[in-house]
Amino acid sequence: MQLTKFNKVVIFGVGLIGGSFALALRRANVVNEVVGFGRSAATLEQARQLGIIDRIGLDVAAEVCDADLVLLATPVGQMSDLMARIAPHMGARTLMTDGGSTKGDVVAAAYANLGIKVGQFVPAHPIAGAEQSGAAAARADLYAGKKVVLTPLPENSPETIARVRKAWELCGAVVSELTAQQHDEVFAAVSHLPHLLSFALVHDLAQRDNRDQLLSFAASGFRDFTRIAASSPEMWRDICMANKTALLGELADYMQELETIRRALAADDAKKLEDIFSLAREVRGNWAPQ
Amino acid sequence: MQLTKFNKVVIFGVGLIGGSFALALRRANVVNEVVGFGRSAATLEQARQLGIIDRIGLDVAAEVCDADLVLLATPVGQMSDLMARIAPHMGARTLMTDGGSTKGDVVAAAYANLGIKVGQFVPAHPIAGAEQSGAAAARADLYAGKKVVLTPLPENSPETIARVRKAWELCGAVVSELTAQQHDEVFAAVSHLPHLLSFALVHDLAQRDNRDQLLSFAASGFRDFTRIAASSPEMWRDICMANKTALLGELADYMQELETIRRALAADDAKKLEDIFSLAREVRGNWAPQ
Repeated sequence: MQLTKFNKVVIFGVGLIGGSFALALRRANVVNEVVGFGRSAATLEQARQLGIIDRIGLDVAAEVCDADLVLLATPVGQMSDLMARIAPHMGARTLMTDGGSTKGDVVAAAYANLGIKVGQFVPAHPIAGAEQSGAAAARADLYAGKKVVLTPLPENSPETIARVRKAWELCGAVVSELTAQQHDEVFAAVSHLPHLLSFALVHDLAQRDNRDQLLSFAASGFRDFTRIAASSPEMWRDICMANKTALLGELADYMQELETIRRALAADDAKKLEDIFSLAREVRGNWAPQ
Repeated sequence: MQLTKFNKVVIFGVGLIGGSFALALRRANVVNEVVGFGRSAATLEQARQLGIIDRIGLDVAAEVCDADLVLLATPVGQMSDLMARIAPHMGARTLMTDGGSTKGDVVAAAYANLGIKVGQFVPAHPIAGAEQSGAAAARADLYAGKKVVLTPLPENSPETIARVRKAWELCGAVVSELTAQQHDEVFAAVSHLPHLLSFALVHDLAQRDNRDQLLSFAASGFRDFTRIAASSPEMWRDICMANKTALLGELADYMQELETIRRALAADDAKKLEDIFSLAREVRGNWAPQ
C-alpha cells in the first residue's frame, strides 16, 4: 500500500473542514479524484465549481467501494447514520477518518455502526478555526501548521494509522495521538469550557434591560473574551451534549475556582487575588498558540 | 476662560495613559508646556527624551499653583496620597482630572483629600487599551476615537466640566458622562468580570499536573478568551478591590448563569443550551466595539 497517493477520496460534507481537506490534498498533488456527498445540492454544485470536488456523488455504494479514503466532515450528530449507510459498501482497502470536534461519541458511533470494518476507521479532530463555514470558506492551507489529533482504535493496524496520519500530514497538519477519552478531557478544558463561559457571559448581559448601555462601553477585552460567543449555537450545543461528562467536570472545577475568588474578594484578601492573577499571567504569558 | 488652550499641564505618572495624554495635546497644538512627576527618575528622563514632557517637575507646589490642568495618571491606589499632596497648592484656575479605571474609589479619595477644591476635579476613565505600559508605549493617537467616561461631581461647575471634556476631546476621545456608581456598575459587567473570569480559567488550568499537555492543544479560541489574563496582576487586584461591591454582584449573577447552564447540561436539555447560545450569538454578532 502506497502511503502518499490516493486514487479516490470521498468526502461527506463539503464545507470548511471537508472542502479544505480536498483542496489541501489536491494542492499536494496526491489525489486523482475527489467525490463529494452532502445534503445540499446547491452546496455540492458550488464545491464542484470551486474545484473542491471533481464529481457530485450519486450512489454511496458505488463511490465508496473502490475509495481509498472516506472523510466524514458533517456535524458530529449526523455521523452515526452516515456510518450505517457507508459501512456495508466499504471496500477492503477503504480507510475512513473524520473531522469531528468530539471523539468519544464518534468512536461509540463507529463501534455501533461499522461492525468488523471498525478497524478501517481512524478518528481525527483537526484543530482548525471554524469562524467561517461552508464550501466558499474552504482553503487549501486551512490545516497548514495546525494540529490534528488522531484517536486510534485498538482495531486499527499500524499501517492504517500511518496512512490516515499521512493524509492529514499531506494537508500540512501536525499530527498527534491521544485516546478518545484523553482527547475529550483535554478539549473540555481548553476549548469547550471557554466557549461555554463566553456564551454565558454574553447571555447574562443580553437579558438585562440596560444591555445596550452596557455593550456601548464594552471594549477590546470584552471583544476578545466574547469572540467565541459568536460561534454556531447548533454546533456548540452538539459538542456540549457529546462531551457532557468531561464538560460537567470542568464546569464544576471552574465554579469552585470562582467561589474561591469570590471569597477572597469578599474577605478583602488582596494578596490571594494577586497570587491567582500572577500565576495566571505567568502561565498565559509563557504560552503561545502552536 | 478659553476652552481650547492650556498654558501648562502637569502630569503625575508619565506612562501609557499620562504620556499619551501629553502627546495627544501636543499634537493638537493646544499646550505650551507639559511638566511631569513620577516615582521613577529613569522613567521621567525617558519621557523627557521622548518629547512627552518638557520638564521633570521638582516642586509640586511651584508647578501646580499656576497649572491649567493636572492629570493623575498613576495607579488608582496612589491617587489618595497624591491628591493630599497636590490639593493645598492648586490655584483657583487649576483643574484636575484622572485616568483611573474605577471611579467610586477615586471620587471618595477626592472628597477626603481635596476639601473645598473638590469642584475643580472632574473624574475620568479613558477606555484605551492597556496591553502595554510605560512611557515608551505612549502614543499621540492612543485616545483617537476611544471612549472617555467622565463622572462629574455635583460640585463641578458646567464650565469646569466643559473644559475637562474639551481636553479629552482634543486628545481625540469620544466623551460621555455617567455617575460614578453607574460607571462602576457598567465596567464591573463588561470589563472587570471578564478579566476575573479569564484569570480564573488560566489559574484553574495552571494548577494541574497536565497543564503543559492541556496548553499544547489550546488554540485560537483559548488564545482570545485568555488574552486579558496576561494583564497586570497588581492593577487588576486594585481594580477588583476598588470595585468590590459591583464586582461581587456581577460575579454572583454569573455564577447563577453557570448553574443554569450546568443544570441544563446535566439534564440533557439541548434545547435550553441552544437557546442560551443563540441569544448570546445574536447579541455578540450585532455588537461591534466603538
